[in-house]
Amino acid sequence: MGADYSPHNEVSGALEAVKAAAGRFRVLLVGKKELLEKELQGYSGYQKENVEILDASEVITMDDEPVSALRQKKDSSIVIALKALKDKRADAFVSAGNTGAVMSGATLELGRISGVSRPMIGSQFPRDIGGFTLVFDVGATVDAKPHWMKEYGIMGSIYAEKIFGIQNPSVGLLSVGEERAKGNELTLETANLLEQTNLNFIGNVEGRDILAGKADIVLCDGFTGNIILKFAESVLPALKSRVKKYSEVGIFNKFKAAITASVLRSSLKDFDYQEYGGVPLLGVKGVVIIGHGSSTPRAIRTMLLRAEEMVNKDMCGTIAKAFQQ
Amino acid sequence: MGADYSPHNEVSGALEAVKAAAGRFRVLLVGKKELLEKELQGYSGYQKENVEILDASEVITMDDEPVSALRQKKDSSIVIALKALKDKRADAFVSAGNTGAVMSGATLELGRISGVSRPMIGSQFPRDIGGFTLVFDVGATVDAKPHWMKEYGIMGSIYAEKIFGIQNPSVGLLSVGEERAKGNELTLETANLLEQTNLNFIGNVEGRDILAGKADIVLCDGFTGNIILKFAESVLPALKSRVKKYSEVGIFNKFKAAITASVLRSSLKDFDYQEYGGVPLLGVKGVVIIGHGSSTPRAIRTMLLRAEEMVNKDMCGTIAKAFQQ
Repeated sequence: MGADYSPHNEVSGALEAVKAAAGRFRVLLVGKKELLEKELQGYSGYQKENVEILDASEVITMDDEPVSALRQKKDSSIVIALKALKDKRADAFVSAGNTGAVMSGATLELGRISGVSRPMIGSQFPRDIGGFTLVFDVGATVDAKPHWMKEYGIMGSIYAEKIFGIQNPSVGLLSVGEERAKGNELTLETANLLEQTNLNFIGNVEGRDILAGKADIVLCDGFTGNIILKFAESVLPALKSRVKKYSEVGIFNKFKAAITASVLRSSLKDFDYQEYGGVPLLGVKGVVIIGHGSSTPRAIRTMLLRAEEMVNKDMCGTIAKAFQQ
Repeated sequence: MGADYSPHNEVSGALEAVKAAAGRFRVLLVGKKELLEKELQGYSGYQKENVEILDASEVITMDDEPVSALRQKKDSSIVIALKALKDKRADAFVSAGNTGAVMSGATLELGRISGVSRPMIGSQFPRDIGGFTLVFDVGATVDAKPHWMKEYGIMGSIYAEKIFGIQNPSVGLLSVGEERAKGNELTLETANLLEQTNLNFIGNVEGRDILAGKADIVLCDGFTGNIILKFAESVLPALKSRVKKYSEVGIFNKFKAAITASVLRSSLKDFDYQEYGGVPLLGVKGVVIIGHGSSTPRAIRTMLLRAEEMVNKDMCGTIAKAFQQ
């Protein structure tokens, strides 16, 4: 309910997912009942028996301070949805709402998987040669400790194997140089810990190696990860704005800019973060995917299908097992 | 001598700068005399009286460990050039060699300006709307302390005013959210310190605000800055590689890709980090500019002209004065 275009984009995307799933799962729309019912009236051709509304009278907005909002708005869509997950009424939770509230709420309501110190958020960065580099953590916890980062490596490797089918994924540690001695206090100590695991740790990687795809998984603290993620997301809009400016100088430029825009659209499809939905919150007891506040219906659809996959592949159970050992 | 294409690119760029300066400054080429003399034979049409060779028999390579190389190779071009700067035989030092060696060497040989805790490296990021955002520090010191970052703000503001003519430049602190409470331990404490200065501190900025140009100056620790810089530098090559891939599917695509490449070349000129040369090392007693190992002659030329500007505008003296107060 608190996202930029809710409930329109959420409902629209959910119904697309329901159609695509063709009965494999049902969607529980959590929010203000009357608004959701009204929105649903605009659609047809979906399997009505696979869509249900769960009423939630309050809304945590994008500007709300996460922790106090969670405390004060007990009947918000985020809290009610998380309770549904906890009560096994739902198997996964997908939200384009207040990221901090979803993160804190998931940790508070669902709890951490036993042995996991801090949940983390994973993101996929497109590679120049195609495919993705997975980057963890992109903002669940700003100040990381070395053993948390080791845990990111364990959870990330499971995610890469289960969801992307990468056997024995290579794990790189984001730092300022490839050499073992290059890094800050955090990365130097983290490298020591990673070397003692049975992960496929390949050492330090640099900022340029994310797009170059030097490692399947790149580990960093949530502060650094969040900043790179937001920087990366700003590249395509900056590019578009430059090409637009170019197009404004005469008819010939306009023509060339139109061709450029079409080439970029087609060759950089996966650079558009909306295309592949949200980011998983890993380490909590339940499947949670967090999307952009401005998630498109297509992004919501992708998030729901990804959530289904994470449930079917028992993401949480597999992490729990790994942390028991 | 230790750069990827030295001494060719260095000599070629230096002679271009000498021509452009038309007698305003002379260039001292520091390195193996016989190699430099041989390289110089290939050129004509420059003012010979404005080019001089300073012999240095050793070379610090890109793979050398900076501090031990500085100790062992006392007759390397980097050490000899820094000594020339210290002895006032030169007014500025420009290098495309081993970054760590130039940084450490400059700090050791020249010393820090009184009151400056740590030197910093500044970088300029192109903005979507044109112009630049200045980012400090991009890698001089990986683990920063809040009062060092305050000093980055002071030095950065002087650089922005002196070199770019920006009056009262706005200073943003790179963090994970705009709100005052968002950040890690380092940024939260740094924000407190910045608020007590008379800098034009506008609060937190996010990763996306660098290209969007929300602040004239963005402050971050050298670890984060280095990673963003290298990530940013990898964007254009990634883009090119995608467009190339697109061009390989049929003659029509090839045509459209060629137009795209030309539009991007013209509208993203300033996204190519080679175009505007190197980055200044601020806080040491002398003008030092560090370039890419693969610096083009054009980059070397730009670095030399920028160095001239920094000398003429008394960059070091102005910083020294600010830190006296």
